[in-house]
Amino acid sequence: MMAIALLLVGLPRQSWASMTNGGEGIGVVDSNAKLIRQVFDSALVSGRAYPMLRDLCKKAGHRLSGSEGAARAVLLMRDYLQGLGLDCVWLQPVMVPRWVRGAAEQGQVLTGDAEPYRLRMLALGGSVGTGPAGIRGEIIEFGTLKELEEADSLQVTGRVVFLNKPFDQRFVSAFGSYGGCIDIRFDGARLAAAKGAVGVLIRSLTHTLDTFPHTGSMQYGNASVKIPAAAVSTVDAEWISKTLLRLKKIGKRPKVEFTTFCLQLPDTLSYNVIGDWYGSDRPRAWMVVGGHLDSWDVGEGAHDDGAGCAHSVEALRLLKAVGYKPKRSMRVVLFMNEENGTRGATEYARWSAASGEKQLIGLESDRGGFAPREFSSEATAERIQGLQPWLKWLEPYGVYAIRKGGSGVDVGFLRPQGTELYGLVPESQRYFDYHHAATDVFESVNRRELELGAASMAALLYLLDQEGPVK
Amino acid sequence: MMAIALLLVGLPRQSWASMTNGGEGIGVVDSNAKLIRQVFDSALVSGRAYPMLRDLCKKAGHRLSGSEGAARAVLLMRDYLQGLGLDCVWLQPVMVPRWVRGAAEQGQVLTGDAEPYRLRMLALGGSVGTGPAGIRGEIIEFGTLKELEEADSLQVTGRVVFLNKPFDQRFVSAFGSYGGCIDIRFDGARLAAAKGAVGVLIRSLTHTLDTFPHTGSMQYGNASVKIPAAAVSTVDAEWISKTLLRLKKIGKRPKVEFTTFCLQLPDTLSYNVIGDWYGSDRPRAWMVVGGHLDSWDVGEGAHDDGAGCAHSVEALRLLKAVGYKPKRSMRVVLFMNEENGTRGATEYARWSAASGEKQLIGLESDRGGFAPREFSSEATAERIQGLQPWLKWLEPYGVYAIRKGGSGVDVGFLRPQGTELYGLVPESQRYFDYHHAATDVFESVNRRELELGAASMAALLYLLDQEGPVK
Repeated sequence: MMAIALLLVGLPRQSWASMTNGGEGIGVVDSNAKLIRQVFDSALVSGRAYPMLRDLCKKAGHRLSGSEGAARAVLLMRDYLQGLGLDCVWLQPVMVPRWVRGAAEQGQVLTGDAEPYRLRMLALGGSVGTGPAGIRGEIIEFGTLKELEEADSLQVTGRVVFLNKPFDQRFVSAFGSYGGCIDIRFDGARLAAAKGAVGVLIRSLTHTLDTFPHTGSMQYGNASVKIPAAAVSTVDAEWISKTLLRLKKIGKRPKVEFTTFCLQLPDTLSYNVIGDWYGSDRPRAWMVVGGHLDSWDVGEGAHDDGAGCAHSVEALRLLKAVGYKPKRSMRVVLFMNEENGTRGATEYARWSAASGEKQLIGLESDRGGFAPREFSSEATAERIQGLQPWLKWLEPYGVYAIRKGGSGVDVGFLRPQGTELYGLVPESQRYFDYHHAATDVFESVNRRELELGAASMAALLYLLDQEGPVK
Repeated sequence: MMAIALLLVGLPRQSWASMTNGGEGIGVVDSNAKLIRQVFDSALVSGRAYPMLRDLCKKAGHRLSGSEGAARAVLLMRDYLQGLGLDCVWLQPVMVPRWVRGAAEQGQVLTGDAEPYRLRMLALGGSVGTGPAGIRGEIIEFGTLKELEEADSLQVTGRVVFLNKPFDQRFVSAFGSYGGCIDIRFDGARLAAAKGAVGVLIRSLTHTLDTFPHTGSMQYGNASVKIPAAAVSTVDAEWISKTLLRLKKIGKRPKVEFTTFCLQLPDTLSYNVIGDWYGSDRPRAWMVVGGHLDSWDVGEGAHDDGAGCAHSVEALRLLKAVGYKPKRSMRVVLFMNEENGTRGATEYARWSAASGEKQLIGLESDRGGFAPREFSSEATAERIQGLQPWLKWLEPYGVYAIRKGGSGVDVGFLRPQGTELYGLVPESQRYFDYHHAATDVFESVNRRELELGAASMAALLYLLDQEGPVK
């Protein structure tokens, strides 16, 4: 589009707006509608989430717990919060695990051809390394953990298990596809070791067919033997699978060899970064908004979860910028160590329970910096029903629903305190193009989509504070 | 995200789905829900919109009316439609304007510094060229056409008018911002010439601050003098504006000189590409679905409007693939020349009115290949109210609303025939990052977002056919 003359003739000026998500006409004009309009105007014209995210991505960089990047991110975001004029900005100490990748992974498949096939791979977070000697073994493929568990140990012993479970594309929610596959990453090594495997390769958890490996956390549980585990790109996964089939026909089985140099160092000191904004009426009742400050050690953690940090900080900045004075106290918490330990969330939950101060609301953004669409809530069905009239204030901005659903990993630790939990739900289709991969960089985030997310968070916080009643 | 263990513990498996747009649970399980689920499953697992769009973008390339790319696109899409097993595939001849850009634009601003500032620019579609001699003049800036119209001719005569009207970022709908600025592109040259200007530069119509110029149509109307018009990138627009201010302080005004080689050739033969699928009950009542096959002559016309073509063709393919037999006849029309003449839409409207066959429904996709969110409709408020119960079948797939609004430029020509008009409304935030620029390439489209759009189109066509009643 567009042949302009015709559009201008055919449609009134208004229609340009009404052509998309809700248009600019706000049906309800009351004080809530006015304040929320101010918040969105401010976000779209002069929002700071996007430049904040650029700083976090480019000045701190990726920031796995215990890394230098994480330390830079703590100071950067503390300084940023201090610049907002909140009542108190503080660092909450927390001991975090420190897993390091070390030298880059190298892996190749040996098929008997002149040249081996070089794999694009990343060790899984928490995995032991192979060291310079590497490991080497015949590849045996399984489509699911169930297949692996049902396999004869004799088939698996001494081999490298290849877990090739593709995303079920039928989920409209991208997270649905992810949820169906995370078991291979999380439990694959433990189960393969129990069958005598010497290593594990998994197919990267993504919808796309590309050459980027996606890392993420795994655990050994109470396994007596820890074997190295890594993810290969989906293109490589497809190649391995086809090659296994091809060679099987001539009675051969390819070998894989790879080296990883990752290791677990002693726990180290890090911090949750916290900014408090005292409420006028119920200062000891807290509305917590946050994302996680740590990321995986590839890319820049832009969508996961730099975006959530930017959303959360900017939500408070926007409310301040339009002159709002909260009744309850608001607190932004940038949680450390969501990715591989959730120590930050654990510590904040412990501390806040001990403080005796009510953790009224927990709102998390940890699903990327895409255009907002919904809020999820872990509140009761009755309470959620009671919130539906609020949609008249949110729908003009493309937030169509408040719906039962999980909130977020970090604020989820407040569940035992009876905290009412919410999550921002942006458009999900592209999330796993970037998730835990080198592609998750600042440039993958759209300015307006990010700022709209921040404004949506601010609007919900405002409504929760203003419209209550929350007990 | 995600610390997996905690999510798995904290939430039932279901929650992964419910975490986003509607989840996978379909509340209503009836024959409509079942068929629409099949359509979406098929689209997400084995949809063909994405590979179809790749072919259109890479094998035909950009395809301005009358160009070789447009001719390739006609044959390619005809062949594609023939492969779908429709009842009749045909080409509808239409004479189209043929504007060609010629050699690349060159432009520079002379400030008195040693080096001139090189502009990133594109002639506007329909503009006359400067030829090799180029034009040269002092720059005079206006923020709006009103300012230009109110200016003294003596101020403008012999100068190059620079129209620097930035997008109003406050519109939540990206199209709202565009609608507020298209007048500078469309009418700028005509109005500037009336004041004696020798050329026009406009600020590109986009939300982003980048170095890509965005072209698009302009018109001279009944102007007696036609002056060359071009768009400069937003970064260059900002630079020019700041430089004018800076030099004004020392009493100087920078000059600009540029060459463009565009020209209007005689009209040439092209085609609408049409595929008919006969209905069983009312074969002479047509449900028309389409996008426009032409594009601007930069980039690949991926979002504008390759996506709409892929959506429309794929919508019919999906309905066939799940075994649906329409009651009314369905017709995909890939309109030629939407961008600079709408000759294709004019001809289809003329021909269909003459045919005496009822054009019952017109559904257009011309807002990009982003995740679908809504349908717009030009039907009466009562009719649209009556469609609201259909949302129970669409909402699980992220289509939240059917709302009053413009449909599309091409199907809009069917308005006089009383055709009920609809438009697909995808997420709009990124549209103008690509619109009419070199950035509008296949790689800017996400597979799942595109396929979801096609499935949404199929679902609406199905419901319109099945659930009527349409008179």
